[in-house]
Amino acid sequence: MSFIKQYRCTLCNQTLDYDKDIMTCPSCGEKGILDIEYDYEAMRKFVDINYFKQQEEFTMWRYMPMLPVEKTHIDQMLKIGGTPLYRSNNLEKELHIKKIYIKDEGLNPSASLKDRASGIAVLKAIESGYDTISCSSTGNAASSLACHAARMGLKTVIFVPKRAPVGKLNQLLIYGSKVISVDGDYKDTFNLSKLAINEYGWYNRNAAINPHLVEGKKTVALEIAEQLKFRLTDWVAVSVGDGCTIAGVYKGFYDLLQLKLIKKIPKLLGVQSTGCSPFVDAYINSKPLKEAMENTIADSISVGIPRNPVKAIQAVKKSSGAWIAITDEQILQSMKQLGSSEGIFGEPAGVAALAGVKEAIKTKIIKENETVTIIMTGNGLKDPLNAQKAVKAPTLVKPRLEDLKQIIEEKGEKRHA
Amino acid sequence: MSFIKQYRCTLCNQTLDYDKDIMTCPSCGEKGILDIEYDYEAMRKFVDINYFKQQEEFTMWRYMPMLPVEKTHIDQMLKIGGTPLYRSNNLEKELHIKKIYIKDEGLNPSASLKDRASGIAVLKAIESGYDTISCSSTGNAASSLACHAARMGLKTVIFVPKRAPVGKLNQLLIYGSKVISVDGDYKDTFNLSKLAINEYGWYNRNAAINPHLVEGKKTVALEIAEQLKFRLTDWVAVSVGDGCTIAGVYKGFYDLLQLKLIKKIPKLLGVQSTGCSPFVDAYINSKPLKEAMENTIADSISVGIPRNPVKAIQAVKKSSGAWIAITDEQILQSMKQLGSSEGIFGEPAGVAALAGVKEAIKTKIIKENETVTIIMTGNGLKDPLNAQKAVKAPTLVKPRLEDLKQIIEEKGEKRHA
Repeated sequence: MSFIKQYRCTLCNQTLDYDKDIMTCPSCGEKGILDIEYDYEAMRKFVDINYFKQQEEFTMWRYMPMLPVEKTHIDQMLKIGGTPLYRSNNLEKELHIKKIYIKDEGLNPSASLKDRASGIAVLKAIESGYDTISCSSTGNAASSLACHAARMGLKTVIFVPKRAPVGKLNQLLIYGSKVISVDGDYKDTFNLSKLAINEYGWYNRNAAINPHLVEGKKTVALEIAEQLKFRLTDWVAVSVGDGCTIAGVYKGFYDLLQLKLIKKIPKLLGVQSTGCSPFVDAYINSKPLKEAMENTIADSISVGIPRNPVKAIQAVKKSSGAWIAITDEQILQSMKQLGSSEGIFGEPAGVAALAGVKEAIKTKIIKENETVTIIMTGNGLKDPLNAQKAVKAPTLVKPRLEDLKQIIEEKGEKRHA
Repeated sequence: MSFIKQYRCTLCNQTLDYDKDIMTCPSCGEKGILDIEYDYEAMRKFVDINYFKQQEEFTMWRYMPMLPVEKTHIDQMLKIGGTPLYRSNNLEKELHIKKIYIKDEGLNPSASLKDRASGIAVLKAIESGYDTISCSSTGNAASSLACHAARMGLKTVIFVPKRAPVGKLNQLLIYGSKVISVDGDYKDTFNLSKLAINEYGWYNRNAAINPHLVEGKKTVALEIAEQLKFRLTDWVAVSVGDGCTIAGVYKGFYDLLQLKLIKKIPKLLGVQSTGCSPFVDAYINSKPLKEAMENTIADSISVGIPRNPVKAIQAVKKSSGAWIAITDEQILQSMKQLGSSEGIFGEPAGVAALAGVKEAIKTKIIKENETVTIIMTGNGLKDPLNAQKAVKAPTLVKPRLEDLKQIIEEKGEKRHA
């Protein structure tokens, strides 16, 4: 059962009949990113509070009636979503904030939130009869696509910029992808993938272009809502690169608002690195988006020309949220803090959301009596080289108690009382 | 509610009153590993098929009445267990085996099965009033301990041999552990940790010594059983280092047999690397266990002197299972195969179980009409350097379609029909 009503172009606002093989607005070209609109009247009769209670498996597929895919193949898919939402044990006290929740998306099959979009991409490709899917990606979108395509027996051709971290690259290769390492930045990589997809007729999983993928990403918001029993926090913080994830988060909450399951969309905090902050720059200067440099360790959000600016800007604006930028040092410090305070090891772009929350508290954007959900988008194990920058290497000790004692007692370790 | 009856020494067979602070048999010393025995008569009245149906959260804590811990702190713990059990999409066909299931333990909070044991360790340490926990580990036991201790506000002192892979080491440091890198092998590391734990009075999480930890590990078997609706496969394959994990798997199935929820314990396939195979050597030669060299890429099972030999040997023997050794090349080949056939990226010690299954099929230990569950103990992202050995690095391409075409067409990529 599908409640899809139509497409709407985010640029010219015209509506279009839904057709799974149309990717962008025919009038606006590839900048005319499409949004899928649903018949919420009809959906509401089917998806109510009882619908959720009746679902057994806690994966993204419990939201099938709210998604633009057919049910046929989902039993063979890996388990996507159903990731934990943790109430903070220690961060709340450290940051003097009433309530902090952390959504740990690093526990998805390929260890990032992108699995939600890639799961949809693989299913759409199968529906349309493709045998090869392609995308350009700084990492997580690619590894998640490679993962789910492998599981479902599809081939993948992945374009990565040469700076992609080794953990992410190995993942692609282990999943059996044909990896094209592009001697250039993300822009060059994206453009080459576009040319190749056009030339070879592969299925296109470039998130901004493909309107189905935001629908996959929205399931993270649906899960957060369900996990909080539909009583959301004042803020939801997430890092932003291309803009598709924050657009997906907004869309999920928007759906729930239309279904009358929530009363208000939380304020979205869009977090970028000062080394690559086109959205923040545009927001602060009240000017149109301009190409920015790509100079941050948070490779997943190092996107100088975001491909989904309209949806992302609207997400923050319509939710009465805010944009904020933090430095790479703040990211590394937050990585260590989240690990040692909560036992959650996030990748730079994941913990960037925590760094953003801390900055927003400092600048009084987030108030002491407000509540916050942090979306931790990916696992720290994906990027060991940057994790290493966040910590100090241990000293090597000879296996003798006397040598050890010097180290332990120097460092002031106490005996157990 | 606890159904603990008593301890039994696995060496001298004497029983002992249960006391959470006793670690090993007072008569046998530290080789006298204790086993926790339950009052199954009483447990059976409480834990039946309906008990499982009534549990909501799919985590290891659903098995509380079968575990030796108090309930007080489990709500603050990270979500351990509840990992997916996948029916193979492609491996069954590739290996000509009737049914293959894969239990993906890499999706635990710190990305390995060891979280199940460390969760118990942290709770026991809190129950006994310790503020510091210590262990020696080749990696996963340590990172899981560091993870859960951080979450619960305990300090950790971790002893690692200098060969520990960088991904695992970073994880420890991010979680805020005091890491002691020992200039020696696993044996030296273990011995130094023992001396230090004794000297400083820290809580001891060395798996073989601490009888509670096998009880945590057994939950992987309980979950597999529940996920298969208590109709188990003929075989369950798992890699073996110290011997605690396979002992835990056996204990889980043993509990279910006592509860009359299963009719038979599956045959356990203990898998080791040819570079470190003390159990396999003893099995083949029908001789007592001897110290073996430690020469394999699968660092989690590179244990020359296993600390839990009795329970591990009995697990395989009593289940009518078998021991098998595979080479590092077979491990790397299995890593690539599991990734590209099923979209699951396992660490060397994890995919070793698949390599073992393939070897057991070849040598007719496992028959074509039999069914198999493979326990994938840890995530491949933990060990990027070894993953790199399993794949070929991609060639760098200039961002021009002509350059790309050469590569794609050389490699014989077809156009989409």
